[in-house]
Amino acid sequence: MMKADGCRSPVIAVDLGGTKIAAGIVSAGGYEILAREYCPTLADDGIEAIVERVVSAVGRLISRQDMDLSRVCCASIAACGVIDPEAGVIVFSPNLPGCRNIPLRDMLRDRLGVKAVLINDANAAAWGEHQLGVGKGVDNLVCLTVGTGIGGAIIIDGRLYTGSSGSAGEIGHMVIEANGPRCRCGNTGCLEALASGTAIAREAAAHVSRGEPSSLNEIVAGRLEDITAEKVALAAREGDSLALNVINQAATYLGVGMVNLVNIFNPEMIVVGGGVARMGDLLLDPVRRVVRERAFLVSAEAVSIVSSRLGNDAGMLGAAIFALQQGGK
Amino acid sequence: MMKADGCRSPVIAVDLGGTKIAAGIVSAGGYEILAREYCPTLADDGIEAIVERVVSAVGRLISRQDMDLSRVCCASIAACGVIDPEAGVIVFSPNLPGCRNIPLRDMLRDRLGVKAVLINDANAAAWGEHQLGVGKGVDNLVCLTVGTGIGGAIIIDGRLYTGSSGSAGEIGHMVIEANGPRCRCGNTGCLEALASGTAIAREAAAHVSRGEPSSLNEIVAGRLEDITAEKVALAAREGDSLALNVINQAATYLGVGMVNLVNIFNPEMIVVGGGVARMGDLLLDPVRRVVRERAFLVSAEAVSIVSSRLGNDAGMLGAAIFALQQGGK
Repeated sequence: MMKADGCRSPVIAVDLGGTKIAAGIVSAGGYEILAREYCPTLADDGIEAIVERVVSAVGRLISRQDMDLSRVCCASIAACGVIDPEAGVIVFSPNLPGCRNIPLRDMLRDRLGVKAVLINDANAAAWGEHQLGVGKGVDNLVCLTVGTGIGGAIIIDGRLYTGSSGSAGEIGHMVIEANGPRCRCGNTGCLEALASGTAIAREAAAHVSRGEPSSLNEIVAGRLEDITAEKVALAAREGDSLALNVINQAATYLGVGMVNLVNIFNPEMIVVGGGVARMGDLLLDPVRRVVRERAFLVSAEAVSIVSSRLGNDAGMLGAAIFALQQGGK
Repeated sequence: MMKADGCRSPVIAVDLGGTKIAAGIVSAGGYEILAREYCPTLADDGIEAIVERVVSAVGRLISRQDMDLSRVCCASIAACGVIDPEAGVIVFSPNLPGCRNIPLRDMLRDRLGVKAVLINDANAAAWGEHQLGVGKGVDNLVCLTVGTGIGGAIIIDGRLYTGSSGSAGEIGHMVIEANGPRCRCGNTGCLEALASGTAIAREAAAHVSRGEPSSLNEIVAGRLEDITAEKVALAAREGDSLALNVINQAATYLGVGMVNLVNIFNPEMIVVGGGVARMGDLLLDPVRRVVRERAFLVSAEAVSIVSSRLGNDAGMLGAAIFALQQGGK
């Protein structure tokens, strides 16, 4: 839609999630990640420590590529949480404890010495999929990023819809079980509290701790706190019935969330990305079944529910393109 | 936004709900209802009988006004259910049993001998509020019509958002209690099944039938099937605690539904209309409290939750303006 011709130098792109930080150098056209660095977020350490980790990761990237920061167009940061994109502020982030009104854009601009742009991570991933990925040419689409939390983003008429104060798209915080489990946002029964990677790990650990048989016990050598959604998926693929049940339950809840999106938005496409989505059809087949069974037929027939094409790179690529389209401002 | 200059003659406007049919003659500017007729829908009688009632109501209007149908610009019908506006078809309607793929626009065009337009009733009401009512000048707003069912409509950037196949905005069929009561749409735990007028009447009757004390017993002279949301509101205003509890529960569910809308859309305004909304602050005060307590703060602070200004006329006025803006096509 827009042309990424604001800048002819590479962009530093950072995807700051609740669990992991990914940093990359993206070519000027916004189409290719030239180098990547990863590190854990360790969100409980607080925002100063997180900024330090981002700066180190960028430093390693720059020196690995034998580059100079002065050759960089800008840094574009996709961060989890409610973002005020105009002010460059993380207003609030359930997955970055203590993060309230953090001027992250300017903090990173000052530390890196380059222009910086801040965007919500789910919006960045959606924009990446819409510009380069599975959603190319699709004007009405909803994206879900299922990882530690569940992020969401809405594209209407080919444009990111961010609402009246920039905080639209918090699909993970749609209540689907009014009296359900407590969510990190303070509400109860949110989709995120029922179908995120965190919810899958928590549910599996709860079952195992009650003495129910599962290969997860061996996989984590009895350390239930080491159970992750990834390990639950591994056990499920090996036929472990406890793991399968936990994933089916999460997928059913995810399906109910999608029924809501289908009935509300009647979108052409729902794109599912994020770490948990790497389970692929193990997760998406039950989701599609729930949508067929429970959504309005006319809307269910109109929607494709598909996996992200850009995968882990969607956030970085989307953030880079977004910044380039803004002219690196 | 658009100018209603397609036609200089009055418009027949019909609001076809699950319980009631309202028909009116709207002045050419689309701003005034010159005459009104009401009759019950008696939806179980089927679509032929409903069309008959609409035609009779229009006939009574025309003769009361001493008009001739040849002087009318067009007939605009706002109907409950999923509408294909291009084809002029009711695709499906949970509140008009048996209604599937009904070419209502052409049926009425043929019976009335005037051009006809078909629009979803909630979209019509939202358009009315946006053009003439409480939502004038508000670009991002969501409307809920709480009556027999719960209809919804979405206005984004000053335009009706109807989705990829015209069926967006089915907010009443957003699941907020995944394992909740069965809804008429076939799903379970929909907002409509928990907070509509029908749900309020059903809940109140269930409590009274278990022998719980309530003034509702006298109000309906022991005929529990005569309990309506209106009568529950009447009892609540007189301090009946059973009625108050039932309304508070419905309002809490409605509040949870609004939390979802606030977190997803970050709208400037949510407009609540429909018969049940005439309860006013008895319903909206608990709704606003739930939104303050459970929605993301930044989005909760950005939204006004307000009653419809056009009330029962919103659907007719919106349908008329919509048709006039389309040039009476």
